[in-house]
Amino acid sequence: MSPRQMHLGVFFFTPGSHSAGWRHPDAVPETDMSFAHYAAMARTAEAGKLDCLFFQDTAAVNGSAALDGGSPWRPAAGRQVFPEPATLIAALAPLTERIGLVATATTTYGDPYTIARRFGTVDHISNGRAGWNLVTSQIEDEAGNFSHDRHAEHADRYARAEEFYDVVEGLWDSFDEEAFPRDKASGQFLDPAHSHILNHVGPHFRVRGPLNLPRCPQGRPVIAQAGSSGPGKHLASRVADLIFTAQSLLPEGQAFYQDVRAQAAAHGREPDHVRILPGLMIITGETEAAAQATYAQLQALTDDATAMRLLARLCGDLDIHSFPIDGPLPELPPSNAARARQEHIVAKAKREGLSIRQVARYMAASLGHHLVVGSPVQVADVMQEWYENGACDGFMLLFPFYPSPLDDFVAHVVPELQRRGLFRTAYTGTTLREHLGIPVPRSRYATE
Amino acid sequence: MSPRQMHLGVFFFTPGSHSAGWRHPDAVPETDMSFAHYAAMARTAEAGKLDCLFFQDTAAVNGSAALDGGSPWRPAAGRQVFPEPATLIAALAPLTERIGLVATATTTYGDPYTIARRFGTVDHISNGRAGWNLVTSQIEDEAGNFSHDRHAEHADRYARAEEFYDVVEGLWDSFDEEAFPRDKASGQFLDPAHSHILNHVGPHFRVRGPLNLPRCPQGRPVIAQAGSSGPGKHLASRVADLIFTAQSLLPEGQAFYQDVRAQAAAHGREPDHVRILPGLMIITGETEAAAQATYAQLQALTDDATAMRLLARLCGDLDIHSFPIDGPLPELPPSNAARARQEHIVAKAKREGLSIRQVARYMAASLGHHLVVGSPVQVADVMQEWYENGACDGFMLLFPFYPSPLDDFVAHVVPELQRRGLFRTAYTGTTLREHLGIPVPRSRYATE
Repeated sequence: MSPRQMHLGVFFFTPGSHSAGWRHPDAVPETDMSFAHYAAMARTAEAGKLDCLFFQDTAAVNGSAALDGGSPWRPAAGRQVFPEPATLIAALAPLTERIGLVATATTTYGDPYTIARRFGTVDHISNGRAGWNLVTSQIEDEAGNFSHDRHAEHADRYARAEEFYDVVEGLWDSFDEEAFPRDKASGQFLDPAHSHILNHVGPHFRVRGPLNLPRCPQGRPVIAQAGSSGPGKHLASRVADLIFTAQSLLPEGQAFYQDVRAQAAAHGREPDHVRILPGLMIITGETEAAAQATYAQLQALTDDATAMRLLARLCGDLDIHSFPIDGPLPELPPSNAARARQEHIVAKAKREGLSIRQVARYMAASLGHHLVVGSPVQVADVMQEWYENGACDGFMLLFPFYPSPLDDFVAHVVPELQRRGLFRTAYTGTTLREHLGIPVPRSRYATE
Repeated sequence: MSPRQMHLGVFFFTPGSHSAGWRHPDAVPETDMSFAHYAAMARTAEAGKLDCLFFQDTAAVNGSAALDGGSPWRPAAGRQVFPEPATLIAALAPLTERIGLVATATTTYGDPYTIARRFGTVDHISNGRAGWNLVTSQIEDEAGNFSHDRHAEHADRYARAEEFYDVVEGLWDSFDEEAFPRDKASGQFLDPAHSHILNHVGPHFRVRGPLNLPRCPQGRPVIAQAGSSGPGKHLASRVADLIFTAQSLLPEGQAFYQDVRAQAAAHGREPDHVRILPGLMIITGETEAAAQATYAQLQALTDDATAMRLLARLCGDLDIHSFPIDGPLPELPPSNAARARQEHIVAKAKREGLSIRQVARYMAASLGHHLVVGSPVQVADVMQEWYENGACDGFMLLFPFYPSPLDDFVAHVVPELQRRGLFRTAYTGTTLREHLGIPVPRSRYATE
């Protein structure tokens, strides 16, 4: 058995991470909203001993910014509606016992007191299984829903995110574990000696505190972060417990892994306390041929217009539709959205000589994440190769649609990984921090 | 059997609505945070066929504003920490089947897009049992947690609340029921003909929409409102489905009931679609003597310092501690907090000639709500008297501590009300609107 084992999360992008996945005959497109389906999928993932569920978020309908000027609706495929994820993980908590529950929430809008309360509350309700995926808003569709014309610039969003996180962390330290004696005899409910006032004053926020929650079961919920740009890596390596990234070539993955770990060490952190999980879109079947057939079926369902809209989001002010679709990808202006993802697809297009259409269809197939098509053994081979060659601590799993590809992964790939000693056969802890093998953080006020 | 039946909600103010309740021998003070206790209490209330659970909220630790200047902690009794209520009701949804789930969220901070998503998500997860208690922030402790020195003035808070509600309502109408064909064959996931852009532009908010949620099972979640001041009644009579109020004298209750119903009619609404539930603190026992003994025990546990801090919150800039505690209540300056509650206690003090200490201890006993102490028959008598004399549509029930007084109410008072035909013996619907007997609202875009 290997001395370390990989960590696996399920990334939910209902009704499918493949843009045409919801049209597959086995897909249940209603998985985008149906709570019964979310509950069933959570139980499946827990039966597979996975570390966590991970819910992406966007506070807008994709493509809605274009509607401002009275443009006609051109809805992107799927992914228009879905439960607010921090609310969803609260509802999943009492239906599960072990699996971690990570939800995304932006720092570009909203405020740290509310975020600290909400994720802290889920950590209490779930007995230590909550995680917050801290993001900056990327898709411009969101700005118009929050009294803004467009997002702040990339660097400003990260400056706000850094301060936002610091306030949330400080609020989570408001009370020591001993702060609530609730002593009926003396009448002492709260012990001021174990209570702390944050009194934060910064460029973006003034927050007094304390947070009106006892210290969380995990000390603090797990922090996830997906920024892979320069400022994104700075924030992630400083504060994140779990890093979700898009890497599709082994050497790139190794370089990212080394870089983030080195940056974490430079922040005075133990690199093994930062778990780095690249996305991995999995299309599997009983045999390689069956998996390839599913992939071909999905690609045949993809329409170029939808694929081009996904690509257009990474093209900044450039109108990608005005270029010949079978010509080369032009030089793209700096994107105010997902900067690292843009660099990733530009490099891939150059390296492989892809046309605009090919790049667009690559985005449509896996949201730009590493895609593996093969039998359970072949999928496990790719995972083992990355894991054993210093490119990751495990994977964030993407599925083309729901729910059967998740069922298949748990039924066929998980046992293969377990046979190889690469993945746990039982949970050994009860909290998400325990699953990830990372410690409970000390309070900033701890004295011993 | 009476032609109409009363509506009952449970108001949760853990660890007790009596300020010293948590010190009672039967109290479990950990009910303030323990999810297992919330789940058990929700099931008890559902076994009693009650309409809803109702969770109050404050986005601060009570008394923390005073800490800004380095003042020592003087913690109020209990009620320091509690789950963020909109998160809590999401977690209770899958553990219950019928009972309504109402949580409080302020309009003074935060934004309408997030509130519309969160409560809409709970409505989907619970299959139509969500309610939003729309409040303006009162307790000054909150301001410092949201980058403010103090709240906006009372009138401004209500102006913002009116606009905030209008935006939330508009967002909930974003999609007609037919908006998501999710048609695999044609590839049409969303139907633009049934999708609506809000494009709200107002003094406080600019919100484009649409909301990234399908239309709610209830059309819109139930709206609760507790404002009883002039601006509060204006908002409540215009938008609320359920009004929670503090009235302790029958003629006052009758006048409030008539007034709000008349205002609702003036807004073009059917008055029976506004359910008016005064708070009722219940202390019961097998006999009147047993109930009185419990009340005496609770009052003996109340300390005057805690009671005085509860009163001080309603005294605006006046330092109530500088007046003789056994002297009369002085003239109070207009409060920027709970204006109607202040008028209520001033009138009560004048009418009954109460000293400052007596007023403070009245606040400490029931948060200023109507208090009834007696046998189950006596409690039912008071409820029947109010209900049958045009003072209410039912009650929001307060309990001095948890969980046994709620258990006792369901075991002994509910059957008494049922025997009298005043309360349902089984749920006849599945949604909160059905329990309350109020219709699903039409979308603003409905054409037929």
